[in-house]
Amino acid sequence: MKVAKFGGTSLASGEQIQKVFQIIKADPLRKFVVVSAPGKRDQDDTKVTDLLIACAEQFLKHGEGKEQFEAVISRYTEIAKYLNLTMDIIDRISMDLLEILHGDRSNPNRFMDAVKASGEDNNAKLIAHYFNSEGLEAHYVSPKEAGLIVSDEPGNAQVLPESYDRLRLLRDRTGVLVFPGFFGYSQDGQIVTFSRGGSDISGSILAAGVQAEVYENFTDVDSVFSVNPNIVENPKEIAELTYREMRELSYAGFAVFHDEALIPAFRAQIPVQIKNTNNPTATGTKIVHVRSYTNGPVVGIASDNGFCSLYVSKYLMNREIGFGRRLLQILEDDNISYEHTPSGIDDISVIFHQNQLDPETEEKIVERIYKELGADNVVVERNLTMVMIVGEGMRHNVGTTARAANALAQAGVNIEMINQGSSEVSMMFGVKGVDEKRAVQALYEEFFSN
Amino acid sequence: MKVAKFGGTSLASGEQIQKVFQIIKADPLRKFVVVSAPGKRDQDDTKVTDLLIACAEQFLKHGEGKEQFEAVISRYTEIAKYLNLTMDIIDRISMDLLEILHGDRSNPNRFMDAVKASGEDNNAKLIAHYFNSEGLEAHYVSPKEAGLIVSDEPGNAQVLPESYDRLRLLRDRTGVLVFPGFFGYSQDGQIVTFSRGGSDISGSILAAGVQAEVYENFTDVDSVFSVNPNIVENPKEIAELTYREMRELSYAGFAVFHDEALIPAFRAQIPVQIKNTNNPTATGTKIVHVRSYTNGPVVGIASDNGFCSLYVSKYLMNREIGFGRRLLQILEDDNISYEHTPSGIDDISVIFHQNQLDPETEEKIVERIYKELGADNVVVERNLTMVMIVGEGMRHNVGTTARAANALAQAGVNIEMINQGSSEVSMMFGVKGVDEKRAVQALYEEFFSN
Repeated sequence: MKVAKFGGTSLASGEQIQKVFQIIKADPLRKFVVVSAPGKRDQDDTKVTDLLIACAEQFLKHGEGKEQFEAVISRYTEIAKYLNLTMDIIDRISMDLLEILHGDRSNPNRFMDAVKASGEDNNAKLIAHYFNSEGLEAHYVSPKEAGLIVSDEPGNAQVLPESYDRLRLLRDRTGVLVFPGFFGYSQDGQIVTFSRGGSDISGSILAAGVQAEVYENFTDVDSVFSVNPNIVENPKEIAELTYREMRELSYAGFAVFHDEALIPAFRAQIPVQIKNTNNPTATGTKIVHVRSYTNGPVVGIASDNGFCSLYVSKYLMNREIGFGRRLLQILEDDNISYEHTPSGIDDISVIFHQNQLDPETEEKIVERIYKELGADNVVVERNLTMVMIVGEGMRHNVGTTARAANALAQAGVNIEMINQGSSEVSMMFGVKGVDEKRAVQALYEEFFSN
Repeated sequence: MKVAKFGGTSLASGEQIQKVFQIIKADPLRKFVVVSAPGKRDQDDTKVTDLLIACAEQFLKHGEGKEQFEAVISRYTEIAKYLNLTMDIIDRISMDLLEILHGDRSNPNRFMDAVKASGEDNNAKLIAHYFNSEGLEAHYVSPKEAGLIVSDEPGNAQVLPESYDRLRLLRDRTGVLVFPGFFGYSQDGQIVTFSRGGSDISGSILAAGVQAEVYENFTDVDSVFSVNPNIVENPKEIAELTYREMRELSYAGFAVFHDEALIPAFRAQIPVQIKNTNNPTATGTKIVHVRSYTNGPVVGIASDNGFCSLYVSKYLMNREIGFGRRLLQILEDDNISYEHTPSGIDDISVIFHQNQLDPETEEKIVERIYKELGADNVVVERNLTMVMIVGEGMRHNVGTTARAANALAQAGVNIEMINQGSSEVSMMFGVKGVDEKRAVQALYEEFFSN
């Protein structure tokens, strides 16, 4: 059995939903369909979720909001008409939404969660209705009835472990099951949404619960590229990558995925297949636990900029137990989250996103380091870029570092920092921001052109 | 003015002390002579300091120790005879030592310090006596009279800052001043010794106090080698290196110097010249603050083994503020001093000397990391070697990393870890212990053969 999740652009119009139907029909293993609310039809469009938020705000302020309500309903109506559905489904959606809007508004966060969740919920009802109208047995499944129980944190729900066993029972139902993404129910029956983009989370939880053989995530790109197409023209696509590789790449500019969303699937060891609703025959990219790596050591190259380095030196530093820990404590006191800490004998640098360091904080921190740690020298350098090469294949591959360092040297890029040795699947080079493009291109050339 | 410090082997016999005299006579700028106690004349010999310790222990136990006392005096006597000195100097030394031995023994640490310090103190008296007998005006200077005031920690004295101003006044005295190393006086007039090897410390303090143009440190090697001669045959000598380079090299097997000893000279920006008493015309090695680096990027290669790596991974680790700091705290709770912490996105490794990790501690630490930090995976790997290339010249030298990585790859050495980016003057490669020799040889070949 497969879980297929469709994002907002895959469900933005009747035409798109027809594609989804074809995709589901084409593979009888696609028993579970997780849906978002209708998204943007074009760049200037507004997502149904945003229409719903505007609607909820209007009701919170004025106790009514006809215009906003109709904007939402008109989206569903347009879809229903395109799909030749009978209008009773629109009546059902209208009544459901009106009931929520005129319901309890005493807790604005809870009210907002319920209104937002209706976007997915009603879309699931509409899609199940449509599938049936096309002769495919399909059932809308409410997360409440299915037992998707979450913590009671509006806008940031966390799945509770007992959900998985309940969701597993869905396997025994007949037909295609259409499941709304984005929300669950608290133990006392309240709607609670996940963080934004949370339909990915629902799909991941459902895939883990029903022990799917694959979690298909349909979006609007064919696959993940091996490097940013804005830096390298027509880069290679990645057919298969491991969770670890995906995480390393997502760190630096590969915004494929809300990576927290993958945790349930990751822990249940379910592979994730990224596919394109608009081109479903394209292979896509598969995220797996283990892969064979026969295509060279590197699977992808990522880069991210806007880093700074805080350099601290003190003669005989390495005799002082606790120096590094106390330095990190000083940063933590200002809520600075750091990335790396390369160290010499008597010096250590801490690399972090420079947007965490306004001039005032910088002054305070530098002063504390001189005073409390007795440092000899403290220097802050800004505008560093981290360039990362990622691949399970580099693990025991003598010479990968040499190839990378050579490529950078030949491109005239000075390596300010190297971080290698903890992760077996990545190697990170710190370079000056101005060298980013050249560095990425040189590494791509080295590892992907032949 | 120069401060010349002579180690134990340089003063082990009358013959050696004659060489010292020639060295002092050869350069009128050598106004300050800091001396150790007589050291070993050959491999199987016993240092006077060790004879004194045995003597003190005997007196502490039995209130007497004729045999041990005579063993000490016979060393001075042999020297005095060889140098044709009148025997009143030996009487003076004997009386001084007897007075200490029969003095207050109620505080054994203090008693031990006084007995040990007499080794340097009496040697200074003897040497001043000898210089005068050769027609060179020389004066023994007591650290008490000169004002070398230290903290009252027997065996671990720390110089007090007011000492420097007092020592400066020594500049105005006439003749060569012979100053015993290894000890100072507490504020209430008690002898307190530095940590073992502390004559280097005395010389460094004196050099800072008198604002010497150079601190000459005479030992028994011509100079510092660029690499361990047990690994590479006939390696190049280092003519000049900076304090930073010296510190980085001393970290990994370059036991030139008790590097704490250099702090006073380092802070006062006084260069240190390492020279050979047995071959004083050899250039030696000079430790400076700034040097020109025209001879390639690398000045030395060092390696040290017996490291282990503690690898910790946790999905989404890098979202957790404080993870690294809490990990280091767990190690600190067991007094483990770490060296490096390379990190990936969701993993971090801590590199430290494996002799700090017995199986029991390992089990405890690993358990805490799983339990308190919720780690997914914790792995300890032992027998790593750190190979370090050091040089101020690599600072802005595009391609040094590439050259090093290439050399290692061609020697078939896998790089387990790289630490580069904090120190501008070193680059560290973690390799498996079995690869140490090949790695060092390959790097030497790359950077020193041409």
